[in-house]
Amino acid sequence: EPRGSSVEECGACHGIDGIARDTEVPHLAGQNERYLFNQMLAFRSGKRQHKEMRYMARAMSVQEIAALAAYYASLPPR
Amino acid sequence: EPRGSSVEECGACHGIDGIARDTEVPHLAGQNERYLFNQMLAFRSGKRQHKEMRYMARAMSVQEIAALAAYYASLPPR
Repeated sequence: EPRGSSVEECGACHGIDGIARDTEVPHLAGQNERYLFNQMLAFRSGKRQHKEMRYMARAMSVQEIAALAAYYASLPPR
Repeated sequence: EPRGSSVEECGACHGIDGIARDTEVPHLAGQNERYLFNQMLAFRSGKRQHKEMRYMARAMSVQEIAALAAYYASLPPR
């Protein structure tokens, strides 16, 4: 299980239910788990560039990132 | 409407229904349209790095990319 604080922080943009309100932000709910995990690691390493996402990912352990990827992948898409 | 050939080419990895079989590949069905559009432009410009996606995006016009983004956003997520 990811930390509640992580889910809340992600929820600010991606929605608590993983459905983003802003159409420039991706839905995460029901997305492929390994894809989510790989993208977070890419933001963390800078391989994929995004200011806010790098900031978020750098504050997380790989275990926390794995837990978040599993959590969002498990949510029902819209 | 996007060209049939484009949808087929994207379908090879992302699924004709926008549901990817390979868990390292993102589902596109029901994803936010502007997000999809922005990511394709990022692959096209190289702002976002991905060999196959850059190859695909560079062969497409902005109109084709917009049509594809609208098409996948309109598909029912799983």
